[in-house]
Amino acid sequence: MDNKIYDLIIIGTGPAGLTASIYASRYHLNHLVLGSKEGGSLSLAAEVENYPGFKKIAGLDLANKMMEQVEAFGVEILAKETTGIEKKDGVFKVQFDGGKFLQAKTIIIATGTERRKLNVPGETEYLGKGVSYCTTCDGNFFKEKVVAMVGGSNAAALGTYHLSNIVSKIYLIYRKKPLRAEPFWRERIEKESNIEIIYETNVVEILGDEGKVTKIKLDKPYKSNQELTLDGVFIEIGGVPGTQLTIPLGVDLDGSGFIKVSSDMKTNIEGIFAAGDVANATGEFHQIVTATAEGALAANSVYKYLKGGQK
Amino acid sequence: MDNKIYDLIIIGTGPAGLTASIYASRYHLNHLVLGSKEGGSLSLAAEVENYPGFKKIAGLDLANKMMEQVEAFGVEILAKETTGIEKKDGVFKVQFDGGKFLQAKTIIIATGTERRKLNVPGETEYLGKGVSYCTTCDGNFFKEKVVAMVGGSNAAALGTYHLSNIVSKIYLIYRKKPLRAEPFWRERIEKESNIEIIYETNVVEILGDEGKVTKIKLDKPYKSNQELTLDGVFIEIGGVPGTQLTIPLGVDLDGSGFIKVSSDMKTNIEGIFAAGDVANATGEFHQIVTATAEGALAANSVYKYLKGGQK
Repeated sequence: MDNKIYDLIIIGTGPAGLTASIYASRYHLNHLVLGSKEGGSLSLAAEVENYPGFKKIAGLDLANKMMEQVEAFGVEILAKETTGIEKKDGVFKVQFDGGKFLQAKTIIIATGTERRKLNVPGETEYLGKGVSYCTTCDGNFFKEKVVAMVGGSNAAALGTYHLSNIVSKIYLIYRKKPLRAEPFWRERIEKESNIEIIYETNVVEILGDEGKVTKIKLDKPYKSNQELTLDGVFIEIGGVPGTQLTIPLGVDLDGSGFIKVSSDMKTNIEGIFAAGDVANATGEFHQIVTATAEGALAANSVYKYLKGGQK
Repeated sequence: MDNKIYDLIIIGTGPAGLTASIYASRYHLNHLVLGSKEGGSLSLAAEVENYPGFKKIAGLDLANKMMEQVEAFGVEILAKETTGIEKKDGVFKVQFDGGKFLQAKTIIIATGTERRKLNVPGETEYLGKGVSYCTTCDGNFFKEKVVAMVGGSNAAALGTYHLSNIVSKIYLIYRKKPLRAEPFWRERIEKESNIEIIYETNVVEILGDEGKVTKIKLDKPYKSNQELTLDGVFIEIGGVPGTQLTIPLGVDLDGSGFIKVSSDMKTNIEGIFAAGDVANATGEFHQIVTATAEGALAANSVYKYLKGGQK
């Protein structure tokens, strides 16, 4: 058993966790990054145009650049999913792979969000058989097919635009009107002739035949039909913060379930810091730039905390 | 006279101002970026290793990438220094070039900081004749010469390291001990044999002969001599926030002279937002990543403010 106690373990491999590591390296903190989803949600973005320094870059490429930068400082990114965190005598025990664990004086939680589900019949049954939460991953399976995108955010609009170049037709179905996506995205998708936007409508069921999606059912008729015939359904309705690990530790959440942090990324539990999409530092405005800033701030806070504690 | 009223004028061309523009473009805000120092302080950094996505890049190169990205959205960067801002009937009049002006509904102040001066005899007299505030700009004039760097921050350490590869010898003079630079930088400069660190010492005068720096005077002897013979003095002792334009408008400052902002980058004056090094959003922790995040947040706030106001 490894009895080493790290200064810091960062949980999460998205922009927040990776930037925290870049800064932790500069502070000479003995640390490690733990996370099974390389690049976090960023790696699922088909294209990124709002990260300063890159006019246009695939999310996965940007994530890979950040990971290489972390590793260039000699830091290990351990591609394991954390299964639990315990605090004992001021030391955190971070568990993974069943019985294995690593120990650290401080933790940065940068676990991001997981995709929110529609919770309608057929959604789980047809997952991977027409139902997808990732246009970048699965878009190419739907060449010249008819699909639907459910959602109204930037991510939904980006996904719709991306898919419109692959599929023959795409319905964008949103429960409200107008889309809450930025004007940039709204205008872009309105220009595409194979995108049809259905406002103020909910998907209530996903139907299939022979193990494949064939139809969706709406809560009101669209062009006098309550069912749409199609081959795939993409769901982009936001994220659920990844707080499963921190709830047992007593880390405070805000009303929407995000981790409450101070302006220097401290949580209410001593030694636990949070950064990125999982934290509530910037309200609902979760961006790559805010995640990187919060990662840097969290590492800075850890450094000050440890320096203070060791003196 | 141009009677057009922009949605937004961004003052400052560093990472905060440029990111604000990238986001403003995505919000389809009719806007313009105004600033005479392309890239702001970033462009003076010899190398950047803590901006996620680039293992190592010259500050000016990163600034240029951001400027190209701004211009790719069709936005003009007007290389003019703002000489004044007036608010009249809810519209801001931004002056430059003597009598010229542009008008906007909102302003983002991203004017960063200016270099702090030592305020010692000889400093102004020998500016450009041995005295410099920019290692990247002027370092190459001191090949195989002896110079001093005054300061103890990351910027001072980076500048010292950068110069150590050019000059024959460099004294790093800091008024305290140890350096306040990150451990990363401390270790790096301690390894260089031609860097000599002089702690707990102040430079009290810069002396010259025939219009060129020849010596500096210290407030206490170093190796039994109160004067050092050298060819150049670099000064890196922090920044003074660029608030000259906002003080007449009544924008509140904090105790250190930085613009007070809320978590969404609003100042106390309606329609004026601030971002980056000039603002106090992250205390004394001013980084490229925090500037970009604040720029994005400020643009988001402007968008919400205008959308709310126009409805």
